[in-house]
Amino acid sequence: MKAAFNKVLIANRGEIAVRIIRAAKELGLQTVAVYSDADARSLAVQMADEAVRIGPAHASKSYLDADAVLHAAELSGAGAVHPGYGFLSENADFAERIEAAGMVYIGPTPEAIRTMGNKAAARAAAMRAGVPTVPGSEGVVNDADSAVAQAEAVGYPIMIKASAGGGGRGIRIARDEAELRQQFATATAEAKAAFGNGEVYLERFIRRARHIEVQILGDGARVVHCFERECSLQRRRQKVWEEAPSAALSETKRAELCASALRLANAVSYRGAGTLEYLFDDDTQEFFFIEMNTRIQVEHPVTEMVTGIDLVKEMICIALGNPLRLRQEDIRLEGAAIEVRINAENAAKGFMPSPGLISQLVVPGGPGVRFDSMLFPGYTVPAYYDSLLGKLIVHDRDRANALARLRRALGELKVEGVHTTIALHQALSGDAQVAAADVHTGFLETWLDANPLAPASPIPVAAPAAVPSAPTPSSEKVTA
Amino acid sequence: MKAAFNKVLIANRGEIAVRIIRAAKELGLQTVAVYSDADARSLAVQMADEAVRIGPAHASKSYLDADAVLHAAELSGAGAVHPGYGFLSENADFAERIEAAGMVYIGPTPEAIRTMGNKAAARAAAMRAGVPTVPGSEGVVNDADSAVAQAEAVGYPIMIKASAGGGGRGIRIARDEAELRQQFATATAEAKAAFGNGEVYLERFIRRARHIEVQILGDGARVVHCFERECSLQRRRQKVWEEAPSAALSETKRAELCASALRLANAVSYRGAGTLEYLFDDDTQEFFFIEMNTRIQVEHPVTEMVTGIDLVKEMICIALGNPLRLRQEDIRLEGAAIEVRINAENAAKGFMPSPGLISQLVVPGGPGVRFDSMLFPGYTVPAYYDSLLGKLIVHDRDRANALARLRRALGELKVEGVHTTIALHQALSGDAQVAAADVHTGFLETWLDANPLAPASPIPVAAPAAVPSAPTPSSEKVTA
Repeated sequence: MKAAFNKVLIANRGEIAVRIIRAAKELGLQTVAVYSDADARSLAVQMADEAVRIGPAHASKSYLDADAVLHAAELSGAGAVHPGYGFLSENADFAERIEAAGMVYIGPTPEAIRTMGNKAAARAAAMRAGVPTVPGSEGVVNDADSAVAQAEAVGYPIMIKASAGGGGRGIRIARDEAELRQQFATATAEAKAAFGNGEVYLERFIRRARHIEVQILGDGARVVHCFERECSLQRRRQKVWEEAPSAALSETKRAELCASALRLANAVSYRGAGTLEYLFDDDTQEFFFIEMNTRIQVEHPVTEMVTGIDLVKEMICIALGNPLRLRQEDIRLEGAAIEVRINAENAAKGFMPSPGLISQLVVPGGPGVRFDSMLFPGYTVPAYYDSLLGKLIVHDRDRANALARLRRALGELKVEGVHTTIALHQALSGDAQVAAADVHTGFLETWLDANPLAPASPIPVAAPAAVPSAPTPSSEKVTA
Repeated sequence: MKAAFNKVLIANRGEIAVRIIRAAKELGLQTVAVYSDADARSLAVQMADEAVRIGPAHASKSYLDADAVLHAAELSGAGAVHPGYGFLSENADFAERIEAAGMVYIGPTPEAIRTMGNKAAARAAAMRAGVPTVPGSEGVVNDADSAVAQAEAVGYPIMIKASAGGGGRGIRIARDEAELRQQFATATAEAKAAFGNGEVYLERFIRRARHIEVQILGDGARVVHCFERECSLQRRRQKVWEEAPSAALSETKRAELCASALRLANAVSYRGAGTLEYLFDDDTQEFFFIEMNTRIQVEHPVTEMVTGIDLVKEMICIALGNPLRLRQEDIRLEGAAIEVRINAENAAKGFMPSPGLISQLVVPGGPGVRFDSMLFPGYTVPAYYDSLLGKLIVHDRDRANALARLRRALGELKVEGVHTTIALHQALSGDAQVAAADVHTGFLETWLDANPLAPASPIPVAAPAAVPSAPTPSSEKVTA
């Protein structure tokens, strides 16, 4: 392997920072964690060879502060920066600045982030590559009149989507012309306020769609796909349960879908790991490209489980300047994997965040079980960031066995001290419709209305003395 | 699946009891743990649906007491008994009594245990099946004179082995005729005292041999192999590190070895999981069958990692009366796996057992890492049984990557409160000869002489208040 760099700075926190440190260590690289004041004792900080403080707890002054992260990278002498997901991971300017400072950005080129990270541009690129997209406007719509004109051809209900939006943010639905006129100005203003970019476009609203996405890896010259994931179980457009493969696809449809993803990724000579997200309509068996994420995703482990590929290691190997070492014909789909997100939330109280001290942690073991988290007994979940504590991932010979394994592993997992979504996943994993994979992106919210979760038992109050000491830190801390 | 039974009693303790409970739960079966007084708070007891006390701490009065286990099985209404490894797992009389009581024994027939569990009989069966064996006596040798006569043809040094021995017990080495005469009577007397059976036989002593074994699964009508494991790193003939596949075998040699295992297992219409153990001589590229273990083995997970097969689930499915669902052509070897045994031992003090209270436990995560153990924070390792706490197993695309993953995972694993073999494995995983797979069954003892481990730091004294509460027991306890 060409040693283009030997030290990686991880510009992130939480479980994905831990995940990236693991991959870098296995490749023999030195690791640098960055941390806000809320994360000074985090597992990532303990595991990394070095750790650099980048600011106070608020993300806008630490993990989202490109200056602070860049300064930490330069200070530590890192040769490369891995952005993880969220925070600065789809910020083309940040990628550009990393490269301008002579470091390697572990991800796509700034140009690819710009093109594919902008929904309207990505949609146009998909059309050029012959990849089906949801019927909608031709690019950005500038005023209400042209929105109404274009909506005629697409049909109602129709969505107004912010070009710079994502993760379900920046979307409004109009059922008729009046609503479209009424919501257009609001949507534009909201997009400007939320994303600093007021551009919007239109898209047909599909009532019962599955969310299916294709994982790809490219080296700038060649792209392979690692099959698909299905992430239809969502709450407020946030994925809570992900699988590979999708139970809804025939072999023919899977091949078509993956081929379309390759066409689009090849069209932009994609480098790094990326995900092309699609909606799939069970009734018509049509799939429509909706957007691309130009980074690693939370749910990448299900793909790793069914293909045996370490996606984060591959990302780093590509960034080191190596040609992609995977041949498409060697990438095989084996069995089925399911990931459930373990969040610090009180599901019985509207999924209210539940920060606090982890007083007890029991991690499930045995075959086909993986638990990726930043937890350790004695860790305090801060209130400043998203509520993801970790991900429980299972793999087995087929979906029915994977589901049985998930139920077994959820029964073993104990996270005490905060409310978690473990009980939600236990209920879902025992649900007949989930077992039949008879779901769509609206399924979970309807299910939650029909299946109110029992109020969680009060969190056992952990006396301070009952908290074991944290694992011995192995890192040298540097304050920037 | 035919529901021949719906409740399984696990006639064992420790990590293998936990392993079997996991498999049974995934198959939707009820589980019954048995426990001695030393194990009343064990993880297996907590995980099982029911738990039955079978006696005091001493194994001879609990886990080795067939009457007590049989009584517990009848009391609980179990339809089947899984013996695990060790204890009663290779006791044909026990298997017979289980079946006579109308329950299913999850393992081979009593006849197969008798034939293949007796080393001399197994050796004779191997010869009949055309499977190479270590040159030695033709079956049992009855007196010193015939031992000397037979040793002439085999050559010195020669081993005197107890027919009923195993795990390295009941073996003596003679370098010449005088030593053979001198040791014969002692060996016979020792065998009688240790195993209740004074029969011995002779075998050529191979100075530099690898230990390679083949995993098989049969349903009584058909047998498949799941490739081999190499377990050459041993201390006092106890395996401490196991791998799959063996780095020493060419594809041709692997095919020959596995075919020979199939021949022998087919010859006895083998049912259940079994392992055929071989010595492999690197120089001559010869393999010799040495013995068969008619049960699941400690190191079965490495095979599960490289084949994706859940061996314990398959054992239970076969016991349920199902034909073997695996076809030989579907069983593929993917990547490489390594297992290291985490024992409660002070490696710096002659591997003295180190029982005690587990004050802190941090389990590694991430891709390709599995930790099978009976540990939880607050668990007290009893002094009555073997020192195995658990097994860290890693899997990756090839052996070099698996080794890097092992080093990474060992760095994350923290077991505090007792001395463990983690540091030994860290040293071994960084050793150049181990990295080159240039090892044999005598390697580790020589290595230990040359690489004295640093005295372990004193065990941190855990104040009782620092121990978190045990996971909430989910089992209903029954006292027999």
